[in-house]
Amino acid sequence: MNFSALERLDQADPLTHLRDEFVIPEDTVYLDGNSLGLMTHGTQARVAETTAQQWGQDGIRSWNEHGWVHLPAKIGDKLAPIIGAQAGQVICCDSISVNLFKTLSAAFAVLDARGEPRNQRHQVLSTADNFPTDLYMVQGLQQLIGAENCELVLADEAELLADLSKHIHAQTAIVMLTEVNFRSGRRLPMAEIIAHAHAAGALVIVDLAHSAGAVPVELDKWQADFAVGCTYKYLNGGPGAPAFVYVAERHLGSVRQPLSGWFGHARPFVFDAQFEATDGIGKMLSGTPSILAMSAVDAALDVFADVTMVQVREKSIGLAELFLELLEQTGLAREFDCISPKTAQQRGSQLSFAHPDAYAICQALIEHKVIADFRAPNYLRVGFTPLYTSFTDIGRAVARLAEIMQTRAYTDPRFQTRQAVT
Amino acid sequence: MNFSALERLDQADPLTHLRDEFVIPEDTVYLDGNSLGLMTHGTQARVAETTAQQWGQDGIRSWNEHGWVHLPAKIGDKLAPIIGAQAGQVICCDSISVNLFKTLSAAFAVLDARGEPRNQRHQVLSTADNFPTDLYMVQGLQQLIGAENCELVLADEAELLADLSKHIHAQTAIVMLTEVNFRSGRRLPMAEIIAHAHAAGALVIVDLAHSAGAVPVELDKWQADFAVGCTYKYLNGGPGAPAFVYVAERHLGSVRQPLSGWFGHARPFVFDAQFEATDGIGKMLSGTPSILAMSAVDAALDVFADVTMVQVREKSIGLAELFLELLEQTGLAREFDCISPKTAQQRGSQLSFAHPDAYAICQALIEHKVIADFRAPNYLRVGFTPLYTSFTDIGRAVARLAEIMQTRAYTDPRFQTRQAVT
Repeated sequence: MNFSALERLDQADPLTHLRDEFVIPEDTVYLDGNSLGLMTHGTQARVAETTAQQWGQDGIRSWNEHGWVHLPAKIGDKLAPIIGAQAGQVICCDSISVNLFKTLSAAFAVLDARGEPRNQRHQVLSTADNFPTDLYMVQGLQQLIGAENCELVLADEAELLADLSKHIHAQTAIVMLTEVNFRSGRRLPMAEIIAHAHAAGALVIVDLAHSAGAVPVELDKWQADFAVGCTYKYLNGGPGAPAFVYVAERHLGSVRQPLSGWFGHARPFVFDAQFEATDGIGKMLSGTPSILAMSAVDAALDVFADVTMVQVREKSIGLAELFLELLEQTGLAREFDCISPKTAQQRGSQLSFAHPDAYAICQALIEHKVIADFRAPNYLRVGFTPLYTSFTDIGRAVARLAEIMQTRAYTDPRFQTRQAVT
Repeated sequence: MNFSALERLDQADPLTHLRDEFVIPEDTVYLDGNSLGLMTHGTQARVAETTAQQWGQDGIRSWNEHGWVHLPAKIGDKLAPIIGAQAGQVICCDSISVNLFKTLSAAFAVLDARGEPRNQRHQVLSTADNFPTDLYMVQGLQQLIGAENCELVLADEAELLADLSKHIHAQTAIVMLTEVNFRSGRRLPMAEIIAHAHAAGALVIVDLAHSAGAVPVELDKWQADFAVGCTYKYLNGGPGAPAFVYVAERHLGSVRQPLSGWFGHARPFVFDAQFEATDGIGKMLSGTPSILAMSAVDAALDVFADVTMVQVREKSIGLAELFLELLEQTGLAREFDCISPKTAQQRGSQLSFAHPDAYAICQALIEHKVIADFRAPNYLRVGFTPLYTSFTDIGRAVARLAEIMQTRAYTDPRFQTRQAVT
């Protein structure tokens, strides 16, 4: 491994200084930011201040004095430029799952308001290998309101892309897709899909779980109707951090959603018995948000203030291409079947490799302080997070992988036992 | 004020040592634990450890190594004895609002499974002055599935109690009540109401927002069907901390809920496209929970380990009765109209007083470091949290209130301006 060449790449990297903002686990190459992003020093300090001072000393007054009540919208406005949205269309709340339920219901309400007969346009189109929770939420809504009002239809991802017209048609109410596939890293051409869906009279919900903070997203330009996304992956908001939801400005006036908790009320502290939605994106809120969780997300996003998503994308591609190149150089490419698209522009910020021993290899890598992850049935996933992953990291990771394969360290029986969370 | 008598009460109090477990804001009498409970030192340390070590150093591996994946159920089992439930029926997740949506839908599913024709039994009975978010969630479900399937019916609280049979009848599907009224502190006779509802063929959802950790709750003994509750009030879980949900064991086998996210799946890491609920209370989970928020709740509950709810209740009544007695002694009782029940057993752990200047008086109290709160239209609320409120605190609070009223300090114009959160 030519580490001096890699160090030169790091020196030339315009984002290299951002690594110092993060707590990097000791002696570790962390390639799992697509599952749980690392913590910034600023986030750690903010959480400490939120406990010691805000909760500990200022107590209940902090809802006003420290702006707790405004955090969901404040974070939304910080997220907006990262996902190509004007301010006022994004808010931070709940989980992706819960936000999908809101947006699915809201999208149906938009179609109802258009006078679309539900019995003629009631299908929710998604892909069979979308992240399961997305499908489960449609199944939950379907069970609640009946398949005649909401019916999940699954397409094969490749077949969908090969013939959009065949799959998106007059019965399609909602196209619900994740831009970047969690297994393969494949990035869907959302602008094209959205244009096609709109032409067919359908609305589109985009799941940005593996996009936000990783690739340049252009929700407004694409004319997406709704989007949801995750802050704990590339946005480094902390384990299980609250998700976000986007509603296009054109829908905000009339849209409604059924998880109409008091935080979405026009005047929550009047305590009126009748729900009246607040104007704007606030109506997507439901119950009281966790302030510890919100504070962490708010602080985590500060590192994006002086970064463009174009810079992030450029380095992400650089890291991934280097990884592939080093696999070639070391001969590992023969063993690891890359199931991600060969063309960088068709990928998100990860590479996935099929290998019969993927699980054990992943465990062996982790023991050697290279943190990747495994996804069923047999994929090793490697995530690239340009804010803190260096080119040298990539070299170290591949060198350790080569050693593990050469010594067959992964065959150790203790790497075979599956853990609760894989 | 006879402070030496109050100090003797504190010395004789079997819970007095627990005050040291808490971070008490400097020089402050905190009587707002019914809105946001104080932080324990243990919770602060746990949050610091969760950031510095678990997230910061151990990253993604913490889902297994630090048991993140088990936190919702672990916390549920800690909560169970506090609310009179056997383990395995309680889980920590989401907000009360979201959990109400789950339990409302689940209760209707139970009735469907019993073969109850929905068009004959579709009403959700609640009280007009229940906490608004409870009503809003029914309204959201009603809008989604139609008033013929779910119709909110509101009764006056006093009228309901005066004649249960008149209000709970063959059209009543679900009785949804908050045990302790957030405004008045009135405690409803839940055992009696539940028996009555069951006799009429209805199911019962109990909101324990102002009960859990404050009064002895006996969900199993009462035969409650479902319950939800809050961990950020008397349970000290932190601002906006995740809520909990209880499902009676007899319903757990067959119940389903529509927010069927991947954390409620039988095998979430198999990533199957078809939802299959896990056995037991885990099926009430939806998306990925915030681990910072969960860790805080988990640590906060430790202080309850060696305390019985009977002890908590006894001291709570002692504090409230002392407050009332001191209002009498100081003549303040003439100005402050106590709208809470006169009989201690009919109250939760708060007292509410109507006063035309309640808002300004509350602000003046806060400036004098007595933290109470205000609820529209004109109530001053005072909460008693036996784990950290002392009898001396009560004396200091009443003395400061007397001074504010005597000097008319509350008439200062700066106390008139309403804040975002009241």
